[in-house]
Amino acid sequence: VILVVALNPALDVTHRVDGVDWAGVNRPREVHSRPGGKGLNVAATLHTLGAGVRVLGLAGGVTGESVAAGLEGAGVPAEFSRIAGQTRRTFTVVDSRRGEAALFSEPGPRVAPGEYARFSVMYRESLRESAAVVLSGSLPPGLAPGTYAELTQAARAAGVPVLVDAHGDAMARAVAAGPAIAKPNLAELETLAGHSLSTPAGPDLQAIAAAAQRLRAAGAGAVVVTLGAAGLWAVTADGCWRASPPPVVAANPTGAGDAVAAALAHGVVLGRPWRERLRHAVALGTACAQAPVAGEFSPGAYRRLLPGVAVDRGGGC
Amino acid sequence: VILVVALNPALDVTHRVDGVDWAGVNRPREVHSRPGGKGLNVAATLHTLGAGVRVLGLAGGVTGESVAAGLEGAGVPAEFSRIAGQTRRTFTVVDSRRGEAALFSEPGPRVAPGEYARFSVMYRESLRESAAVVLSGSLPPGLAPGTYAELTQAARAAGVPVLVDAHGDAMARAVAAGPAIAKPNLAELETLAGHSLSTPAGPDLQAIAAAAQRLRAAGAGAVVVTLGAAGLWAVTADGCWRASPPPVVAANPTGAGDAVAAALAHGVVLGRPWRERLRHAVALGTACAQAPVAGEFSPGAYRRLLPGVAVDRGGGC
Repeated sequence: VILVVALNPALDVTHRVDGVDWAGVNRPREVHSRPGGKGLNVAATLHTLGAGVRVLGLAGGVTGESVAAGLEGAGVPAEFSRIAGQTRRTFTVVDSRRGEAALFSEPGPRVAPGEYARFSVMYRESLRESAAVVLSGSLPPGLAPGTYAELTQAARAAGVPVLVDAHGDAMARAVAAGPAIAKPNLAELETLAGHSLSTPAGPDLQAIAAAAQRLRAAGAGAVVVTLGAAGLWAVTADGCWRASPPPVVAANPTGAGDAVAAALAHGVVLGRPWRERLRHAVALGTACAQAPVAGEFSPGAYRRLLPGVAVDRGGGC
Repeated sequence: VILVVALNPALDVTHRVDGVDWAGVNRPREVHSRPGGKGLNVAATLHTLGAGVRVLGLAGGVTGESVAAGLEGAGVPAEFSRIAGQTRRTFTVVDSRRGEAALFSEPGPRVAPGEYARFSVMYRESLRESAAVVLSGSLPPGLAPGTYAELTQAARAAGVPVLVDAHGDAMARAVAAGPAIAKPNLAELETLAGHSLSTPAGPDLQAIAAAAQRLRAAGAGAVVVTLGAAGLWAVTADGCWRASPPPVVAANPTGAGDAVAAALAHGVVLGRPWRERLRHAVALGTACAQAPVAGEFSPGAYRRLLPGVAVDRGGGC
């Protein structure tokens, strides 16, 4: 199974309103709530793909119970180390008339050292039965920036490949610990590089290639940079790659990066060569961006997109 | 104790944001969540006043557990008949910079007949130990519009006075069942009257007096109409009354009507004469409107406001 770590999961609540009154009372036409946060988005996508998945995380309070109940209802195996704090919520208000969405993201709960220690024991035990590990999303308050690095080291010691998708210091430290794949998006790569990697015309592929190379040299087995509608850029042990989707209309790009992470981890477990791994990653990310609900995708669209993805050897390697 | 019925409670979640981006990502500066809905607002106010109170209601799902846990944390005795549906949430976004607030109010859960029947048994048993009953707020889907009328009849049969604050058909039927006090606000009284009771200059006191008289004739022992900053108008067995607050700056009028309901129910139990009952109701409602957080009030402000409330015999009786 693929072990997905969710240290800062969320209960995602979405209200759909036709024409929001931002200074008055609104009766949402539809209300949805479901487990969220990057880790759980990856896990849900892997589960939909039919991959064996197991979630391990931290959860607390009644929102934590909601998250656990939502995963159970969806059939995703999950185990949470209980924390005293309340698992966070996100609120999204979708204004169907204006075509706008506002997201309100609560801060995560503070995690005590003993709570993380209990999680860490569960994690180390679970590594034995895991074919890959996904470390994705922000760290909640109270956890050291070296947390993902520590979890990466433990997985490496157990011979389990790690995919890491984080930002800033947590990402930089995790990369130094030697994950199989580091998957930053453009903004995350820019933070790590310390400078812009875009031109007024769009992503600066040469600068991105150089920054990705440096990140790989820092310790990652491969670096896959997601570039939104422009697809992705990868630097791997099998050289550099550029993968681009066919031109499509994106409905909701939220969660597309998590779909890419899921496809890459799945590709690792299936032993897909890089060319196929990247083709699936772009097709799945694009299918996710085409679906109206963040983090969901149509399996039919995913299959139809696969042959249209262009995967080419990239320059700069 | 005062028995407060909460058939459609809510978990009220408030996010404070400095300058909301209605088409982007927001990190709230403050997040609060607490039990809400009109019934629970009345109960919380009674508890703060030091009155003996007991909440009886319907609750379901993890939001229902949050509501029950919130009341327990606040020390308010409560018993909920469990329902299969999820207790609703309300979500308020306060934009501190613009001084605006947007409220998103989820629909209540559908209540099954057997679920209401279990509540009804609890309610009838609780009447024996109750000095007064408060029926306040909307009915959730699935409950008949005659629900408050039925609960009023049961209380009357047990010799327990009822205060009812509802709208439309539920209110009209409850009034016919003979509550001690019906407490509509101006909009609710207008709905019952079937026509406007305002002039361009403000509330039309003569028309309000006539509509309140008719409502009393339909079955209520007394009718108290809340008029916002204009105070209230009452028609009682002790004649007609007008009660007005001193001029103050209202910070947040939300929940002031529930404070008035709490003070009136408290007045019934304490045996306060109408003049004092109304003075306390206006002072408490005004103190509530002065507090920045909906449903809260400063006990000091409440005490200081009392002598400034003008209570006069009203015309039209």
